[in-house]
Formats: sequence, structure tokens, C-alpha cells
Amino acid sequence: MKSVISVDIPQNPYDVVIAQDAIDHVGAWLSNHEQPLVKPGQKLLVVSNPVIFRHYGDRLVQSLESVGYQVSTCILPAGERYKTLRSIQKIHDAAYDAKLERKSAMVALGGGVIGDMTGFAAATWLRGIGVIQVPTSLLAMVDASIGGKTGVNHPQGKNLIGAFHQPKLVVIDPQVLKTLPPREFRAGMAEVIKYGVIWDAELFAALEQTDRLDQYRYVEGELLQMILTRSCQAKAEVVAQDEKESGLRAILNYGHTIGHAVESATGYRVVNHGEAVAIGMVAAGKLATALNLWSRDDDQRQYQLIEKTKLPTAIPSQAGAEALIALLQGDKKVEDGRVRFILPKAIADVFITDQVSNQDIRPVLAAMTTP
Amino acid sequence: MKSVISVDIPQNPYDVVIAQDAIDHVGAWLSNHEQPLVKPGQKLLVVSNPVIFRHYGDRLVQSLESVGYQVSTCILPAGERYKTLRSIQKIHDAAYDAKLERKSAMVALGGGVIGDMTGFAAATWLRGIGVIQVPTSLLAMVDASIGGKTGVNHPQGKNLIGAFHQPKLVVIDPQVLKTLPPREFRAGMAEVIKYGVIWDAELFAALEQTDRLDQYRYVEGELLQMILTRSCQAKAEVVAQDEKESGLRAILNYGHTIGHAVESATGYRVVNHGEAVAIGMVAAGKLATALNLWSRDDDQRQYQLIEKTKLPTAIPSQAGAEALIALLQGDKKVEDGRVRFILPKAIADVFITDQVSNQDIRPVLAAMTTP
Repeated sequence: MKSVISVDIPQNPYDVVIAQDAIDHVGAWLSNHEQPLVKPGQKLLVVSNPVIFRHYGDRLVQSLESVGYQVSTCILPAGERYKTLRSIQKIHDAAYDAKLERKSAMVALGGGVIGDMTGFAAATWLRGIGVIQVPTSLLAMVDASIGGKTGVNHPQGKNLIGAFHQPKLVVIDPQVLKTLPPREFRAGMAEVIKYGVIWDAELFAALEQTDRLDQYRYVEGELLQMILTRSCQAKAEVVAQDEKESGLRAILNYGHTIGHAVESATGYRVVNHGEAVAIGMVAAGKLATALNLWSRDDDQRQYQLIEKTKLPTAIPSQAGAEALIALLQGDKKVEDGRVRFILPKAIADVFITDQVSNQDIRPVLAAMTTP
Repeated sequence: MKSVISVDIPQNPYDVVIAQDAIDHVGAWLSNHEQPLVKPGQKLLVVSNPVIFRHYGDRLVQSLESVGYQVSTCILPAGERYKTLRSIQKIHDAAYDAKLERKSAMVALGGGVIGDMTGFAAATWLRGIGVIQVPTSLLAMVDASIGGKTGVNHPQGKNLIGAFHQPKLVVIDPQVLKTLPPREFRAGMAEVIKYGVIWDAELFAALEQTDRLDQYRYVEGELLQMILTRSCQAKAEVVAQDEKESGLRAILNYGHTIGHAVESATGYRVVNHGEAVAIGMVAAGKLATALNLWSRDDDQRQYQLIEKTKLPTAIPSQAGAEALIALLQGDKKVEDGRVRFILPKAIADVFITDQVSNQDIRPVLAAMTTP
């Protein structure tokens, strides 16, 4: 099984390749083009973290060296708290030591943190060199690796520092999800459900027909290949139409507005990103239902998918409704002081609005808060 | 007198406005478009250094506030040694404190260091917000402010960290050059001479017909307006054809290959950037003459312009020929291990070559070295 999805961003088109054992073919796919994406003989800097590199580093490096690339590595500690400018400096130091040139490239082997940082380091080295994304978490596969959003956290807020920098290639090997911790697998599935709600009714229906969505072993094989392909296809279609998030792309933030506030209000220690998105989707669904924008039935269908994935559906007790509302005002998605919400109208149909008032939000948050 | 030059970069076109007292009109020009470049009422962060801000800060802020912008300021210490990621963090902190949003912008008021840093901070805040360049040195006016090269230095090398980020508007007020130290004025004139050699024979001829080029007072008024306009026009035409330096844009590095090596070999303390470019142009001219690529007469004409501007024409004794050759190999412009040179064939006609050997370079450098 092999799927190839084109991300048709004007001037920066690229492919997402999804295939079993893809890790062993990265070198071949980089070099085997009429115009190789990176010229064989060039230098590549592989950036990863210790756990991921122990699992998959040798196979990736072997695949790259076997077609003639000069490979160096930069191993950074794992975890969101290392997603800082300090880590970018470490990647830059490694780039300097490896003598990367303008036609060299970096290869991100890891989850969203590694992907975001490597992309940003590549965007800012020699005013932009190539980057290849090899995501190893479900979240990174279906979201972060595609679309060119890169960056690090500012001491005062997540992802405030960053740039748009499209990869030259995204390579997804579904089998690496076997070693992903189950909680992280479920977190990634939250984004998959999101694509069903905002874009792809067939994906939504396929998820509904599956008994369990909470572990790799229940979906591996053809179903997982389909889930990854349709999710990446959805992301690719949206970002190709709106690379820099001036309009449509904002729908990818479905569930993220309240989700970010929940993450922030609980100090990023209680729920992870995917869990926060699940809570945010539940909140957006309830808000849309309360405003008579979508049906109670569709809201229930979304809710059941989230529950079936064993994702949280309630706001943790550490986050109060008023604190969440205050945080919403400080969100990056604020424009002219108004909070933008993505709300569903039907399965695979959402819209963007800044007409939601705090009075609308308050009862929804209150009803969802764990007593 | 007012000149408006269009920089026709696909998807990011913008104007360079050159006019007396332009500083007092920045607010009006930003807001007075059918589609304002920055919406009145939005937040602007002015970044400058203490000396420049004392001279021109009040006038600029007044111009911006008078049309309704909310203005904050970030004042950084002057000097190349502050062109670091640490300063970018300070601008980011100020951006956070000022609550900049995606449609806010930064305004760079200063020379090349302020312009490069503000551009890079804007490129990397919220994945890219707008920047307006108000250059106050001749070098920044004719070179750094146009074309979107932004960045900071890495501990191991200049401008290794950076991004392409085009400004929304460049505003040039020739009268601010009155307060520019004479040595910096001459340094900027080196880049003006460069445009004559690589692109604009009429500019070259006009410079030849002027008695003195080494001080503001000899050129102020119409001649200076013409010099700025033609230089900016040349830069605009080149970068519009090749935004990311994949080809033509490299000709802007005329004089810079050996120039950078001279700056580096003398620890950036003996010659400034413009002086190094002057030395580099003399070297490129001698190299082209030795290789029978251009005439001794044209070489002499270029030499006389540089001398008339009281710019250095010899390599400082601190830099040895072998050290320079070693540094050339480490230059950012190296591709596949070969040094690229820009060499002149005639006035306003240069070409790019990687066919120059160390054997060709050595005697030229030896002949130019101060004993």
C-alpha cells in the first residue's frame, strides 16, 4: 500500500508519501526525481530526539547514505519544554558544524515538536534551506508535518515565534505508530475526527463504522492507511487553497480556540494537545447546537466518535469558565479584539465567525466543567 | 522632489518612496491607500537605536500617531555586535508586551543592523507580520532596506541566521544623511558605485562627472535624489527578477566575495562593510583584467570612482592572501565547494562564474596587500 498526496501550494508544491516501511525509502524518494529534491552527494542534517532516534535513526540514516548523501545528526531532548529558541540555536550550531550549504537540507525525524523546530531552524538557516518531514506521531502525521507551519514557543505563549516554511517532502510510515504511547495515539485521532467534521463526510462515516479507535492495533493495516490518506488529503486541500491562513485555513482550528484555552488554563500539564482539541470540539458542537446552527443529532454523532476514542469530553476542574474566557481574548487568533470561532453546521461543513459573545460561551463552558 | 519605485516581486510588490521630509509622512503613506498597508487603529512597534531615535523618533512617532496608529517602541543598543538572536528575543518581548496581532506591523528606523533585525523579528513573530523599513544610513537606503533579506549573526559567521521577508513599504528621507558620520556615508557610496558597475551606465557616468563623492554636502539635493533613485531602481529590478537569489540576484554580491573575506580576516574591526566592498570591487576588477575579461580602461574608471570617494583600495596588512583564500572556501556563497565570483565585462555588465582558481586569485591579492 502506498498513497501519494500532492500538496499544491503555488510555487512550493510537494508530496506526502504514505507507505509501509517508508522510512527505508526516504533516500530513494529524495534522490529519484528527474530533478532530485536534494542532489545526491549533498549534506543532510537529521534532527531527532533520543527515543525516536534509537527506534528509527539507523534505518533512516542508512536509507539516506545508501544513495550518497552526507548525513550528520542533531539529537535534542524530547518534550514541549525544549521547544525554544535555545534548541534552534543548537540545530544552527549543528548546521554550522556540518557545513550545510544552501542546497543542503534538514530532515525532521520525530513528532510535532521535532518537526516544528527543525522546520523553523531550516527556515532561518542561510535564509531558508530545505526540510524533509518524517513524522513519527499520529498528530504530526496528519497535522503538523503538512502545511509549513514551523516555530517555537515564547516564554509567554506557545508558537508565538515561527515562520511558514513548506517541506520538500513528507514521508509517513504507518508502522512507526506501533511504538507510539496509546495516549498520544488517541491525541492524534482527535485531529482525524476533526477532518471528518470539517471536511470529509466519508472519513467521518468510516470512523463511525469502526468499533474501536483508541489503539493502534484496532486500526492498523488498510483502515489506518485510509485514515492517514484521507486526513492528509483534507489538510493538503485546505492549505493549498490558503497557505498563509488568510481565510479558509482557519477552519483547521476547529476545536482549537477553546482547546488552546484549556491547555493554557491547566498549565499544559493536565491535557495534551489532542485531548484539548477533543474538548474544544465538544464545546464548539454544544455552542453551535445552542445557537441553533447545527442539529442535536450531528452533535451527538461527533460526541460519540470522541467518546469511542476514549478522549476527554469534559473541561478539567483546574480550568474555570471565567479564566477560559479571559484566555480566549489573548489568543493568537484574535483579530481587532474579536475572538474567531469555527462552528459546525453539518458533518463536513463548518464556518468561521466572530459573532459569538461571552454570554453564548459561558453556559457551554459551565455545563462542560467537571464539578 | 519625490520618487516612487515599484519593487515588483510576485505576490509581495511594494514601493520605495524617496522624498524630502519623508519621515513626517510615513503614517500618511501607510494609511492613505485604497487598501491601507496597515489599517489605521492597528498597533505598530517602532524599533530603533538610541542615537537615531533621539534624532528622528519623535517625528516618526508623531507621523504614525497622527493618523491613528497605536505606537510602541523598542530601543536596542547600536552596533553590529548586538545583531544577535538575543536582540531578536528583545524585539519579540516588546511585540508580546505591545500585544501585536497578525495585522500589526513593525517599523525599522535605523541603519542596516536595525533593518535586518526588525525584518527578521517581524518574519518570525506570529509566523510573519508586516514590516516597514525607514533606513537612515546610505548603505541601508540603497541596499539592505530593499529585497527582503533579514537576519542576525551566528557566533561563527555573519548573517547565517535569517529569512527572506519583504517589507510593505520602504521610506527614504535623504536629509537624514546629514547626520550620518562621513565614514558611513562613504561606505554607502561604495554600494552606489557598485550599481553603476553592475547595472546602470548612466549612474556610473553621473558619478564620474561629479567632482567629489566623499561627503553629503557635495551631493545633497537633486544629485543625491538621483543617486538614491537610480540605486534603488537597480536593486528593485534585480530582486524583482530573482527574489530568492537563485540566479541573477547574485550579481548584487559584486565586490562582496573578497570583501566579506577581508572583513572577516580583519575581525570586522579594520574596515566596515562598504569599505570592504570597495576593496572587493578593486580586486574583482583586477582579476577580470588579468583574465582578459574586461579592459584596462574600464578597470581604471572604476578605480578612479572608488578613489574619488576616498574609499580604501588596498587590502589591510592584517589580512594575508592565504588566509583570505581559506576564508573564501567557507563563504555562504559556496556551492558544491566552488567559490562563485561576480566579474565585470564592461560598465553595467557583469557575470557570475565559478571558474576562478586560487592560482588566479593569489597574485591579485598579493599585489593589493599593503606591505
